[in-house]
Amino acid sequence: MATKINFFLLTFALTALISCKTSQQKQSSTSEIGMFKVEILYPGGEDKTFDMDYYEKKHMPMVAGFLGKNLKFYEIDKGIAGRAPNDKAPFVAVGYFYITDVAEYNKAIAQNRDAVISDIKNYTNIQPVIQISEIKQVEHPAAK
Amino acid sequence: MATKINFFLLTFALTALISCKTSQQKQSSTSEIGMFKVEILYPGGEDKTFDMDYYEKKHMPMVAGFLGKNLKFYEIDKGIAGRAPNDKAPFVAVGYFYITDVAEYNKAIAQNRDAVISDIKNYTNIQPVIQISEIKQVEHPAAK
Repeated sequence: MATKINFFLLTFALTALISCKTSQQKQSSTSEIGMFKVEILYPGGEDKTFDMDYYEKKHMPMVAGFLGKNLKFYEIDKGIAGRAPNDKAPFVAVGYFYITDVAEYNKAIAQNRDAVISDIKNYTNIQPVIQISEIKQVEHPAAK
Repeated sequence: MATKINFFLLTFALTALISCKTSQQKQSSTSEIGMFKVEILYPGGEDKTFDMDYYEKKHMPMVAGFLGKNLKFYEIDKGIAGRAPNDKAPFVAVGYFYITDVAEYNKAIAQNRDAVISDIKNYTNIQPVIQISEIKQVEHPAAK
C-alpha cells in the first residue's frame, strides 16, 4: 500500500517537475544585465500614421527572422501617455530587440537592409529613432 | 528495496520541484502582454551630463520604493550607439518601470513629486522625455 502511494506521488512529482521546467523554458522574455537592446522609437505628430497590426504581424516578425539565435526576444509597445496622464505619448509605438551581440545584429541588418527599409512604407510614414543600449541593471523589488 | 529506491526518487523529485518553483518566482523580470511600461529617456547633447552610478544606486531605487506592489521590475539601460555603429546614441540613458496599473503609478508619483523632481539635479542636467506605453506583444522566436 505504502509502495502504491509512493509510486503515485513519484509519478505526480516527476510530471510536475517536467511541466515546471517546460514553463521555465517558455519564459525567455527576461531582461538580463549584459544583454543589449535595439529600440526603434516612432515619434508621433501631425499627419503621422502607424499601422500597429501590420507592424505586429508582418514587419517585426520579418526582422526578427533575420536575427537568428542572437535574438533572445522582441517586444512591441503602444504609446498611451506622456509625462502627465493627458499628455500625448511622445512615441506612437516602440519596438525592441533583445540581443546578445551588437556586431552580429549590425551584420544581419546590413545583409537585409533593402527588405527592412522597403517594408517601412507599408505601415508608417514616420522616420524612426534608433537607440542601441546595454542593459546595466535589472531589479525586482518584490523579490526582496 | 524497491520501496527505498522509490522513496529516494520521491524525495529527489520533490526537492527539484520546490527548487524549480523558487527559481520561477525569482525570474520576475519578464515582460508580459497587458503590462505597462513607464520609460524615462535622457537625450544626449552638448554639455549634457549624466551620473549613471547615482542613477543606479540612488535615484531609481528611491522612485521604485514609491511604487510598491504595482512595480513588477525596473531596468536601467546605457546608450551605446544609434542607427549606424558609429552614431552617438540618441539617449545617454533610459530607465524603465514595468507596472500593472497606470493610474496607481500616477498617484504614487504625484504624492512624491517633490522628492523625485528635486533629486534629478543630483545626477543630470538633462530634461528627460517620459513615455508611458502598453506592452502589446512579446515574442521569443527561439522557443518556437
